[in-house]
Amino acid sequence: MSFYLRSLRRLGQQHIDVASSGDITRFLNISPVQFRKDLSYFGGFGKRGVGYDVRALRREIEKILGTDVIWKIALVGVGKLGSALLGYPGFIEFNLQIVAAFDSDRGKIGKVREGIKIEAIGKAKKIIRENEIKIAIFSVPAEAAQKLSKELVNCGIKAILNFAPVNLVLPENIFVSNVDMASELESLVYKLKRS
Amino acid sequence: MSFYLRSLRRLGQQHIDVASSGDITRFLNISPVQFRKDLSYFGGFGKRGVGYDVRALRREIEKILGTDVIWKIALVGVGKLGSALLGYPGFIEFNLQIVAAFDSDRGKIGKVREGIKIEAIGKAKKIIRENEIKIAIFSVPAEAAQKLSKELVNCGIKAILNFAPVNLVLPENIFVSNVDMASELESLVYKLKRS
Repeated sequence: MSFYLRSLRRLGQQHIDVASSGDITRFLNISPVQFRKDLSYFGGFGKRGVGYDVRALRREIEKILGTDVIWKIALVGVGKLGSALLGYPGFIEFNLQIVAAFDSDRGKIGKVREGIKIEAIGKAKKIIRENEIKIAIFSVPAEAAQKLSKELVNCGIKAILNFAPVNLVLPENIFVSNVDMASELESLVYKLKRS
Repeated sequence: MSFYLRSLRRLGQQHIDVASSGDITRFLNISPVQFRKDLSYFGGFGKRGVGYDVRALRREIEKILGTDVIWKIALVGVGKLGSALLGYPGFIEFNLQIVAAFDSDRGKIGKVREGIKIEAIGKAKKIIRENEIKIAIFSVPAEAAQKLSKELVNCGIKAILNFAPVNLVLPENIFVSNVDMASELESLVYKLKRS
């Protein structure tokens, strides 16, 4: 669904009001048939032979995904990767907005990157609670990850996008999604080697 | 296996020569039992009651994964994310080395980032062939991704780590691994919303 949302946003930017399933799926390499099937899972949209109202469909999908409102995100760990994630334009497309950044490096604390002031980890509780932040992006070294993730959960974080190469063990009601770029690349090497 | 490799590398940096399964799995939140089970899949390593030879086991796992030799990588797209990936220390840990970077933006071509000179896409064929690069990291806009990926395959690329939010359609013998950070974050939002 997020692929379709990106496509609808692009069409909107091009001032296209009505689009066929073919228009919507063009750059996605997903077939229009698959698109209509995916949509039908959530109910009926669009009219046969008329096409889809780009803005209305976008709003519907955003509602389904929960990104019809802005979600505030805390970034924890402002190293090279963290800094790039701060400026990554792909998040705000989905109303995901990094509003706070934390690091334990005194050299970084107080500095402003991409309009966000980097704060000490010790201030996380106050800032996360005050801003009602529920989601954290986690780009910290492996050694610090487990301990920090527990602290974040104590601060009220309910979901973590984890870039640290560690299998975080947290209460069951906390959602964790892992992004391990080096492992992905390495599994490509493994496949290449065996092919 | 890549988790274990990271852990063994860390132990090596701490000048630890022999380690128990508990030492190796400590920061990973994987049980020693699971570790021994995973290893046994590839044959016998270590001696009961003695522990594992950190360097030897590391070499064995690298051999299994194919990362006992350096793999040269081309980065395509040197935007914010691409720049961060150029400097990402997690790749070289696995002997994955970015040796070439390409962009279509004239303002970037010729500039040096993280010791790599950014080249025009038009030079990709020559550089990729000369350096026998088989793997590309792909951080380009969605609209350009499909076309560029085909060009890369024509240059000799066999595997792509794709950060572009597009479902690339390529010949069957090309391996593609997708990393879609915004979608990951969004699926966390979806789960949060429903919980």
